[in-house]
Amino acid sequence: MSETEKPKGHTLPKDEGLTNGGNNVSSNVSDEMTEKFDLATVYVSDAQYNRNIFFGTSPQAVRLYLLYNHLFMQTLVYVFIIINLALALFEDPAVVPLPIWATSTIEIICLSAFTVRMVHYAKVIPRDKFWKDPKNICIIVIVTLSFIDLTIYGALKATGYFAIRWSRVLRPLLLVNVTEGRQLRRAFRSIRNALPQISYVFLLFMFSVLVFSLMALKLFGKRGLLTIDGSPYFTDYLDIVFDLYVLVTTANSPDVMMPAYNYSVFFTIFFILYIVINTYTFMSFFLAVVYNNYKKYLKEEVRQLVKARRFKMCRAFSLLRETCGEGGEPVVTQAKWNHLVKLVKPNISIAHQELLWSVLDDQNKGHIGKFAFVQLADLLSIQVITVKSQPHPIQICFPSMYNSSVSRFIRNVVHHRMFVYVYDLIILVNAVFIGLDEENPVVSNAEWGFLALYMLEIILKLYATEPRAFFARHHFWNWFDIIIIVSALFGTIINSALKHSGGYTSRQILDIVFILRVLRLIRLVDSIKRFRAIINTLIKIGPTILTFSQLIVVVYYIFAMVGMELFKGKVQFFEPNSTSPDQEYCGNPLLKGTTFAKLNYCKNNFNNVVSSFIVLLELTVVNQWHVLTSGFTAVTHVSARIFFVLFHIVVVIIIINIFVAFILEAFLVEYTVDKSDLQTSLEKKIEELELNVQQDGVDTGLVDAMESNDNELGPSEAGKQKPSLMFKIASRRSRTVDGLLQRMFETDLRTEDFNEEEEPENISFSNPAFDSV
Amino acid sequence: MSETEKPKGHTLPKDEGLTNGGNNVSSNVSDEMTEKFDLATVYVSDAQYNRNIFFGTSPQAVRLYLLYNHLFMQTLVYVFIIINLALALFEDPAVVPLPIWATSTIEIICLSAFTVRMVHYAKVIPRDKFWKDPKNICIIVIVTLSFIDLTIYGALKATGYFAIRWSRVLRPLLLVNVTEGRQLRRAFRSIRNALPQISYVFLLFMFSVLVFSLMALKLFGKRGLLTIDGSPYFTDYLDIVFDLYVLVTTANSPDVMMPAYNYSVFFTIFFILYIVINTYTFMSFFLAVVYNNYKKYLKEEVRQLVKARRFKMCRAFSLLRETCGEGGEPVVTQAKWNHLVKLVKPNISIAHQELLWSVLDDQNKGHIGKFAFVQLADLLSIQVITVKSQPHPIQICFPSMYNSSVSRFIRNVVHHRMFVYVYDLIILVNAVFIGLDEENPVVSNAEWGFLALYMLEIILKLYATEPRAFFARHHFWNWFDIIIIVSALFGTIINSALKHSGGYTSRQILDIVFILRVLRLIRLVDSIKRFRAIINTLIKIGPTILTFSQLIVVVYYIFAMVGMELFKGKVQFFEPNSTSPDQEYCGNPLLKGTTFAKLNYCKNNFNNVVSSFIVLLELTVVNQWHVLTSGFTAVTHVSARIFFVLFHIVVVIIIINIFVAFILEAFLVEYTVDKSDLQTSLEKKIEELELNVQQDGVDTGLVDAMESNDNELGPSEAGKQKPSLMFKIASRRSRTVDGLLQRMFETDLRTEDFNEEEEPENISFSNPAFDSV
Repeated sequence: MSETEKPKGHTLPKDEGLTNGGNNVSSNVSDEMTEKFDLATVYVSDAQYNRNIFFGTSPQAVRLYLLYNHLFMQTLVYVFIIINLALALFEDPAVVPLPIWATSTIEIICLSAFTVRMVHYAKVIPRDKFWKDPKNICIIVIVTLSFIDLTIYGALKATGYFAIRWSRVLRPLLLVNVTEGRQLRRAFRSIRNALPQISYVFLLFMFSVLVFSLMALKLFGKRGLLTIDGSPYFTDYLDIVFDLYVLVTTANSPDVMMPAYNYSVFFTIFFILYIVINTYTFMSFFLAVVYNNYKKYLKEEVRQLVKARRFKMCRAFSLLRETCGEGGEPVVTQAKWNHLVKLVKPNISIAHQELLWSVLDDQNKGHIGKFAFVQLADLLSIQVITVKSQPHPIQICFPSMYNSSVSRFIRNVVHHRMFVYVYDLIILVNAVFIGLDEENPVVSNAEWGFLALYMLEIILKLYATEPRAFFARHHFWNWFDIIIIVSALFGTIINSALKHSGGYTSRQILDIVFILRVLRLIRLVDSIKRFRAIINTLIKIGPTILTFSQLIVVVYYIFAMVGMELFKGKVQFFEPNSTSPDQEYCGNPLLKGTTFAKLNYCKNNFNNVVSSFIVLLELTVVNQWHVLTSGFTAVTHVSARIFFVLFHIVVVIIIINIFVAFILEAFLVEYTVDKSDLQTSLEKKIEELELNVQQDGVDTGLVDAMESNDNELGPSEAGKQKPSLMFKIASRRSRTVDGLLQRMFETDLRTEDFNEEEEPENISFSNPAFDSV
Repeated sequence: MSETEKPKGHTLPKDEGLTNGGNNVSSNVSDEMTEKFDLATVYVSDAQYNRNIFFGTSPQAVRLYLLYNHLFMQTLVYVFIIINLALALFEDPAVVPLPIWATSTIEIICLSAFTVRMVHYAKVIPRDKFWKDPKNICIIVIVTLSFIDLTIYGALKATGYFAIRWSRVLRPLLLVNVTEGRQLRRAFRSIRNALPQISYVFLLFMFSVLVFSLMALKLFGKRGLLTIDGSPYFTDYLDIVFDLYVLVTTANSPDVMMPAYNYSVFFTIFFILYIVINTYTFMSFFLAVVYNNYKKYLKEEVRQLVKARRFKMCRAFSLLRETCGEGGEPVVTQAKWNHLVKLVKPNISIAHQELLWSVLDDQNKGHIGKFAFVQLADLLSIQVITVKSQPHPIQICFPSMYNSSVSRFIRNVVHHRMFVYVYDLIILVNAVFIGLDEENPVVSNAEWGFLALYMLEIILKLYATEPRAFFARHHFWNWFDIIIIVSALFGTIINSALKHSGGYTSRQILDIVFILRVLRLIRLVDSIKRFRAIINTLIKIGPTILTFSQLIVVVYYIFAMVGMELFKGKVQFFEPNSTSPDQEYCGNPLLKGTTFAKLNYCKNNFNNVVSSFIVLLELTVVNQWHVLTSGFTAVTHVSARIFFVLFHIVVVIIIINIFVAFILEAFLVEYTVDKSDLQTSLEKKIEELELNVQQDGVDTGLVDAMESNDNELGPSEAGKQKPSLMFKIASRRSRTVDGLLQRMFETDLRTEDFNEEEEPENISFSNPAFDSV
């Protein structure tokens, strides 16, 4: 650290190292400072976004690393992954068939892109770290195997042989092993960690099923009972095991019992016991085991994350620190801090920056120690909304008109509670009209009236509220309203234009208009506080549901690929107006007389990716599971049951339980975890400075701790004088999954010491045990 | 407190007040002391069993109270409740019809018994307390209404009018409001407390269903689609709402979607969204809300319980205390303590008593203070097993033979691990033989061989282990083995005797023999440590499942009564060999061509209590819910759906979730809660005194904290000298629900102060808010 850096102060002197240049020495110092700042910025933003990549610290490496983390590059990777996954739509069996050379070319492009990305990554991190990380190995293996498979497939096809694109099963694994798939990897890890315990419970559960099956064989096998379709009842052991396994899914619930029940009422005891033990107790037990493990390993992971984050912040600190006075503690000056924050978050307002500084530098010393500095990453994660109470544009243009008593009256009316109630009533009446037959002219004309009323509402609100405040990013319902209403207006106009021109109405446009109309009703939810609170909780769970939908996609994709190879073309769907006699049994004589064909399930097939996904969804919902399964076993072989049972175990027993576990945990955290210390101190500071936005009426209700009025700007009383700039914390809860997880265990972690800097190598940046599947 | 009581000591002087009598004064003192001890005993046992009844403290009142709490009286009450509930079997519509005078007489006897019990209770507790307690009011109202209903019904029936026994709905409520129904009341209260929050989520959920239904109406209503049975698809709003509600139960899962899916693949998006939002997210949300509330209110209740318990112990203390030295703290001497413990637990061994004392009186002072005294109730709840290492009876009779090398070898073999493995293998082979056709002579003869092997095992074990230790109450698997094997032996003998005598085999006996044979296989579970751990957890959850089965019985009974009035006789079951043409449509022409009749669900009816319960169970399992519902609506009216939807909401959404919540909580508690301080100190004391039973190998596995070897006596090495008396704690976990609950929150409560005595009136013994439904 150069000795020339002395000036300290509360004013904003341009950062020394950067601007006092001219001579050579100073320029060198400046370069060095720039590099240091760049590196510190990377550390801070890594800490903020929980990136755990061990990169080189040379300026080139940092620049390469920044490029690697660039949003554009990350988006590109996902685009290529999606293209690669979407190839299944065009490959045989295809939704839209494309020639093999086309799909192969696209796949080669995608694979090359992944290779380039991998090479880039290899340049960013040290060689030994690269080869130690299983997720890199995974990607390399997947890409290599895909290339090999592509070559073999092309060669075989060219010579007219039969070939299978087996490497397609590997494609979704890219989604997991890519650097950005942290959340997904975490979900997979929590599954993997819960697996041993789940398997013990599963084995015991299977033991119970086997014992019950044996008992069923002995009790019912010799009684000569018949099922509803005339086949012998419970005579073959393996069939009994399968039937009773199906009973656990409840899919054949009363039917499997009926022959025995019809014979004697006492036999129901057997089934009641079975249901209580296997369906209810064991299934709850699975949930409990999954939930328990999920919590346990998550805690450990988050602990690691927080440790790594602090370590990175300590590194950033050590880059920027200077010693304050003789033998004093190392500190970071406000000037340097300001520069760093500006680099990390370029579009931060100066007011916001000063607010953050005042939270950290509580005693107004002009510099902060390590402890305060480390909090920067967390502080930056708290979304602070800067509310500028600017005058309304109309007020600027026509001040007298805007301030007239009529205008003021209108504005008061709009901000009044009754205004909301009146519009709620209008929505309710609208709901009734939507339910009526839209071909009735009264109803279709009323639609114009409703549209006009909604437009009027938006205009009035825009008149009464400053437009920039109205359109602020966090005002979800305003955006929702405008998009829905304006789209509905356009849709209705186009629809009516089409109708008047040729009497022809496009069903698609009409469908969209209908959907938009119905969506309008959702606004009612926002009017009822308790509903709003629930919705907010659901929204907060949103990111998690996204992670889990990725998880589901990965698992579905793998099963769909296998399923397509096993069952493609075996079940045919005929358009409803087809007259083919094969229609009755889905084009496969083996299905003649089966429940599958009788229920007209022909479209539930594995003939392309889309229908495969839909069948898998139906299998996830579990109802009629046995009908679907028996359909596919009828056209292939009884052993196909293994595929479906495996799917049931993986998706229903494990993944759905993980999903429920996360919702449970997220809900309980929402409910029990208080605001973090940092948020509290930030709020306190805002209040101290009297810059807080008044919030009308604290929510006491469903979940007291739930924050529900972050979408409502307090009514701006015209008379009162307010500071021109105000802050509020966007949501008292952090919205990212990481943040949520971290808050779950914050209380346990807060007491940990900050001495991470001393043991840089012990902190595993990319701990193999935690960093890949 | 009389000044004559001075002697203190570690020896056991006969309790002064009780035995030094002779003169009048002393006799009076003695009487007074006896009364005090009686009262203290009642307080301690009330504390131990968490009874919260505010009784008078006069000797007569105490005697009356003891009578009220006598096990015989409590059993009698339950017998009468069960008889009263079982009346439904004999009343119209009956399983076994009895004349009205007979059922009425029995009911009058039951009601009189409840009245007597109530009068008894009124004499025990103060009048104002009695009338303030809602559960008493409830019972009085129920009994009165039942009498009125009985009179009206009798009169109407006698004059030939139509009459309904509406008061039967109230019967199960007695189960809840009876003094002993504490657990059940708690479950009901936790439901009631969760109700407001559940209802908000439910309203939002219904709003979502209604909005989706409206959208479905607009999207599908005009398209002229047909369902599989040719009826129009999604044209009536209320039908759509019902269909989509059924989709939440998943009962009509792919079927409801198929017409739209066959029309266009894009419409599946609608259903996928619906399933994700309503079936998965909302249903998980219900679980989360129920779980969260359950935890919250439970905590408050247990807090109250523990407070009341401590208060009672403080009262007992103040009855027996005496001042130790000048201005010293009040204490209780060991002599008094011993007498009290003997009164509370008459069959306690002196050794056990001394052990408990040594835990409380850690410094060996001969007296204990309030803090230590209060712990007595908890200490008595910990089940300590006294293991007396007595010599084997054979050893006493034939010492030389028993100690011979052959005998020792046999004993070593029996205690060897291989012995267990060999028998596990035998069981596995047996399982295969059970699966084979038992009419094969080889198989039926092998059965004798297996029986002989099992008998041999029991005899060998009895030879190697001291019989009293072998038959100890906590050795579950020994008991299980003997009962199963001996019954199987008898069954097989009877069966084979019957067969040989007339060639006739009773199916019933054969069924029992089969069941016993299969049950034998369960023993395998005990051999695998991890399975044993899971089973132990399940066993610990047992009492809870009992409470919940009571809850289910109450709810089922109410719904069964209503259902029987609504649907009795509407659906007829014909024996399978009947030739009636009505059989095809369950004797009701309205059912012609319905899925209900096609699937032969005729026996699923409300024609008597038993079949009602079975139908309700099928409705709980939810599958084919819509088929059952549509059957019953077909024979009555569409509005009957209300009954079934209500049942679904109450049982599936609320009660099943409570069940899952409890299993979750119980599992997590099992996993996370450490031993209580008291248990630890008791165990430490046992270890200190070197009286602990060696346990082989601490379980590390599924749940590290789970105790799994409490059913296994450590192999008694012949050579080692051991004390003749040893202790071990039966299970590290308390087995009662109360104990489990208390442990859940023990950590929070441990820090509370013990000053309860000072505010006796603030502690609500029978807090109306917490003491009744």
